[in-house]
Amino acid sequence: MNVNELRNLIAKGEFSKPTAGYCKGHVQANMLVIPKKYADSFEKFAAQNAKAIPVLEIIENSFYSKNLAPDANLLNELPAYNIFENGKLIKTVNNIEEYYKEDLVFFLVGCSFTFENALINDGMPLRHVDEQKNVSMYNTNIKLTPVDMFDGSMVVSMRPIKKDKVADACVVTSHYPNMHGTPIHIGYPEMIGISDINKPDYGDFVEILEDEIPVFWPCGVTPQNVLEKIKLPFAITHAPGHMFVSDKKDSDYYV
Amino acid sequence: MNVNELRNLIAKGEFSKPTAGYCKGHVQANMLVIPKKYADSFEKFAAQNAKAIPVLEIIENSFYSKNLAPDANLLNELPAYNIFENGKLIKTVNNIEEYYKEDLVFFLVGCSFTFENALINDGMPLRHVDEQKNVSMYNTNIKLTPVDMFDGSMVVSMRPIKKDKVADACVVTSHYPNMHGTPIHIGYPEMIGISDINKPDYGDFVEILEDEIPVFWPCGVTPQNVLEKIKLPFAITHAPGHMFVSDKKDSDYYV
Repeated sequence: MNVNELRNLIAKGEFSKPTAGYCKGHVQANMLVIPKKYADSFEKFAAQNAKAIPVLEIIENSFYSKNLAPDANLLNELPAYNIFENGKLIKTVNNIEEYYKEDLVFFLVGCSFTFENALINDGMPLRHVDEQKNVSMYNTNIKLTPVDMFDGSMVVSMRPIKKDKVADACVVTSHYPNMHGTPIHIGYPEMIGISDINKPDYGDFVEILEDEIPVFWPCGVTPQNVLEKIKLPFAITHAPGHMFVSDKKDSDYYV
Repeated sequence: MNVNELRNLIAKGEFSKPTAGYCKGHVQANMLVIPKKYADSFEKFAAQNAKAIPVLEIIENSFYSKNLAPDANLLNELPAYNIFENGKLIKTVNNIEEYYKEDLVFFLVGCSFTFENALINDGMPLRHVDEQKNVSMYNTNIKLTPVDMFDGSMVVSMRPIKKDKVADACVVTSHYPNMHGTPIHIGYPEMIGISDINKPDYGDFVEILEDEIPVFWPCGVTPQNVLEKIKLPFAITHAPGHMFVSDKKDSDYYV
């Protein structure tokens, strides 16, 4: 299925599943939608914390992407959306047309699916992909740099990597600085405030074998965690795993 | 002091100290000298284990470098040499003219001093450098690929790196594949057969602080360890830390 077919099915409400594994090689993006009055502060906050919140595109006064997928409708071309009020998830929907107001600003944010393809292609199979699970994610004590009302701690994703491949995983992912880039931490979960590696805060648990080391990358769930913490009056996000599948290729973001 | 001045002093017997910190930016090399009848096997062994034994130059039928420092005399332009018989260190000398025979082959091998400069320049200070100590080195259970009589395990060097800089250290050193390149292991010393990190097998102990992770690179002491193990009838090496300071620049080996 090509990317136009997939987004058409999604727009018609005929595809509402997670997007992992679809349109391989195409960049998938996280989305965050907030009222204009918070947008400047959030943009600066993202820039200060770009490893966790790498902004790929900002859309104002419109709900169509320009850069990532010209004319893709952001109100119905993602398979599922979460609606937040005062930091609380109040609803998950497949279409946000009824929530649209002119003062909303759309942020499309880089996602680790891009570097996961690179890891797999470079001989580092990923257990959560093989087992068709969601990646393991954890809250940490790694403080973000605050800007205005935005503040909080980083969420990380974890992938077990064979011990003699950990350095390679750093090098491979360093080529995708806009897709979270290099690991933020390697091994020793307790050093970043993770008390039980077997209990992820988001996503699924995967086993860590004896010859593997848990490797941690900054995660695109970070902004969702922040808006819950600061109780932002209103926000919309993609539902975890239900990403915006763009026209851009992973290779477009290789540096 | 420029590199010619340093090598002249060494040749005259007026400099016999470790070379760390001299002629910064110049490539320093390990040296191994063995009889011709073992040289082909060793060359293949090094190629099979190039992360630990990255050969920069091989000199036959001569004792002058051609590539690393044209016309430098390898018999007296290193500050100290170790003489081995049947795998046993029998003597340390400042000049090997009396040991020279036409059938000896000289191997110059990459050294981690090159990437250490890069790490320091990139904001990763190294404790053993700051404390003017030798780097900590350990025997491991990482098996080398055997070729003919050559066989053994890898020796690694260890540098404590701040936890949020470990991935950067991998990326920086990946640019010097001929100077041992990326780490072979990160954290968890016991996973590579190191039972007590506080007791290095070679070099000096340095403290590992609470927010640091021990990072392990393949080490140029590996061939010395191999020739001891296999009891090679005759060999000469540089004395640890007393390197061949070449005309080449670190940047010549950046890829």
